[in-house]
Amino acid sequence: MQARALFGIEHPIILAPMAGGPSTPELAAAVSRAGGLGSLGVAYLAPAAIRAEIAKLRSLTDRPFAVNLFVPEPAAPDRARVAEVQKWLAPYRAELGIAEPPVPSSIPFAEQLAEVVAARVPIASFTFGVPSPETVRALKASGALVVGTATHVEEARQLAAAGVDAIAAQGAEAGGHRGTFAGRSEDTLVGTMALVPEIVDAVKLPVIAAGGIMDGRGIAAALALGAVAAQLGTAFLLCDEAGTDPGMRRAVAAAGDTSTTVTRAFTGRAGRGLRNRFTEEWVAREPAPFPLQHHLTADIRAAARKAGRPEFVNLWAGQGVARARAVPAGALVAALVAELATARRALAD
Amino acid sequence: MQARALFGIEHPIILAPMAGGPSTPELAAAVSRAGGLGSLGVAYLAPAAIRAEIAKLRSLTDRPFAVNLFVPEPAAPDRARVAEVQKWLAPYRAELGIAEPPVPSSIPFAEQLAEVVAARVPIASFTFGVPSPETVRALKASGALVVGTATHVEEARQLAAAGVDAIAAQGAEAGGHRGTFAGRSEDTLVGTMALVPEIVDAVKLPVIAAGGIMDGRGIAAALALGAVAAQLGTAFLLCDEAGTDPGMRRAVAAAGDTSTTVTRAFTGRAGRGLRNRFTEEWVAREPAPFPLQHHLTADIRAAARKAGRPEFVNLWAGQGVARARAVPAGALVAALVAELATARRALAD
Repeated sequence: MQARALFGIEHPIILAPMAGGPSTPELAAAVSRAGGLGSLGVAYLAPAAIRAEIAKLRSLTDRPFAVNLFVPEPAAPDRARVAEVQKWLAPYRAELGIAEPPVPSSIPFAEQLAEVVAARVPIASFTFGVPSPETVRALKASGALVVGTATHVEEARQLAAAGVDAIAAQGAEAGGHRGTFAGRSEDTLVGTMALVPEIVDAVKLPVIAAGGIMDGRGIAAALALGAVAAQLGTAFLLCDEAGTDPGMRRAVAAAGDTSTTVTRAFTGRAGRGLRNRFTEEWVAREPAPFPLQHHLTADIRAAARKAGRPEFVNLWAGQGVARARAVPAGALVAALVAELATARRALAD
Repeated sequence: MQARALFGIEHPIILAPMAGGPSTPELAAAVSRAGGLGSLGVAYLAPAAIRAEIAKLRSLTDRPFAVNLFVPEPAAPDRARVAEVQKWLAPYRAELGIAEPPVPSSIPFAEQLAEVVAARVPIASFTFGVPSPETVRALKASGALVVGTATHVEEARQLAAAGVDAIAAQGAEAGGHRGTFAGRSEDTLVGTMALVPEIVDAVKLPVIAAGGIMDGRGIAAALALGAVAAQLGTAFLLCDEAGTDPGMRRAVAAAGDTSTTVTRAFTGRAGRGLRNRFTEEWVAREPAPFPLQHHLTADIRAAARKAGRPEFVNLWAGQGVARARAVPAGALVAALVAELATARRALAD
């Protein structure tokens, strides 16, 4: 099975969904127009905004695209934990000159899903778990292919049993949230080189390789490991069409090597990003569970972005961050395609 | 530069040095005879044993091989730390019915190096640091190529500046000791997919990819990333010629997935291996520095091996451990070569 036959795309290149900033309809459309598969990360959006973003994307391209949601998880709101976390967050609010807002409500998954089903999207992808049988059924009935995200072979087996059409194998190198939902977190920091062939062998489904892939050499390596396509997020962070805010652009552009950290400080879920004052100050603190910590820190991160203070912002980025390129997304896809051809030729010699 | 031109080998396949058990002259010779590059891990051996192992290897093949040493590090013996660690080790000794031995002396690096220089080996590789200018000079004068190990691009730059001939880029997936010698340990758990192209671009030297490579798909991926060869250790753990003890063979054969742990419990240096009672019980304990912790735990590990109790043994293995194959090493190399050809053909299509 090749990416062309599976997703109807020209090149085995998928834009990772990057909810909460970098993901924009313009970025997804640019990747799809260039022959890859653009993804919209809509998991933090209100249902109406999801409808608007998908409509915007469709106004920009008639090529296939993917929409990504988070599988919901029951987060018991715990007053004592909220109070403790708010106490830790108070100094940041003081430094930024903002007041503590009321705790927002949780992510309205059912309504989000209803929008995605109603929009009849070509591909729906999920992170953080196994979508329920009803979810998979509704999406398939709407005409969507369903993609699940696995960080460990056991997660891939659970997703396959749930009837997904393909699996994104997210290696430990990947930036942003770890998709992990089963097993110890240490067990799920598996490098792409080890993870992809293991999942390819374990499930009879097309596998998408993600994590540490920044150029055509990485895409060729992903295909060599048995993946049908490579998924790249960090590689697109500096593209003109990305929603990456200016402070984060400067931080990503300044990253000189593979050094990043995995932190739960921003959202309660492990994510890989650039180290900053916030990640350092939370090393020994226990954040609230996801998505509560996300909601609790949202005002601080928004104010810090506005104030140009990336030291309080989740600078999600993978271990390939030093090689992100500040070019239009279409030009990046074209470069990746050319590099992939070169890498394939070199390997054939 | 290809592996053939650089090392005089037929296939881009290097046996990782696996000091302290799995490494044997028979295993290295089998890999070299099959057209790969066998490596002897001699870093824990007395000088006379190094001489004997190299002679044994040469009696089995006239093909190129590599010998690996640890760059020495000054470990100030600290009586208080030794006492604390010995207190933690006492219950294991009681359980195994052995007495506390005197603390052995350190690794005699100068004498080890003298043996390797005198043996005029084709390739000398190093882990844990940058070999000194005198060391590099002496080995080159003896006719050896010198290979350094890097887990981060900054380490690769330091090795290049020291005049090594090639760099082994050790990704986070790799089993056994992390070669790390510069920077924070978190920064040096970089996946092979991200690490190899970064080092290829940063230094004008041939790069060997290591970490998570278990079959021809992984070797093809390593070459696609720009490496001249792939280095595999875990893949050879179950080979007939390996010195892997029976308890560890059973543990490796039973490993069902990519789950491993990175621990300093056995030697004082971070290494990746199978989780067991010893790694679990040392999660919150600070071991003595390397190589002191290695010496302090050596009697316990030896007794545990003898007693068939792998729960106290360093079961070094990488994240590809579930795919280790119990076959003769020559057959494994032949299979890898065939798989590599298949992967190359698939990628060319």
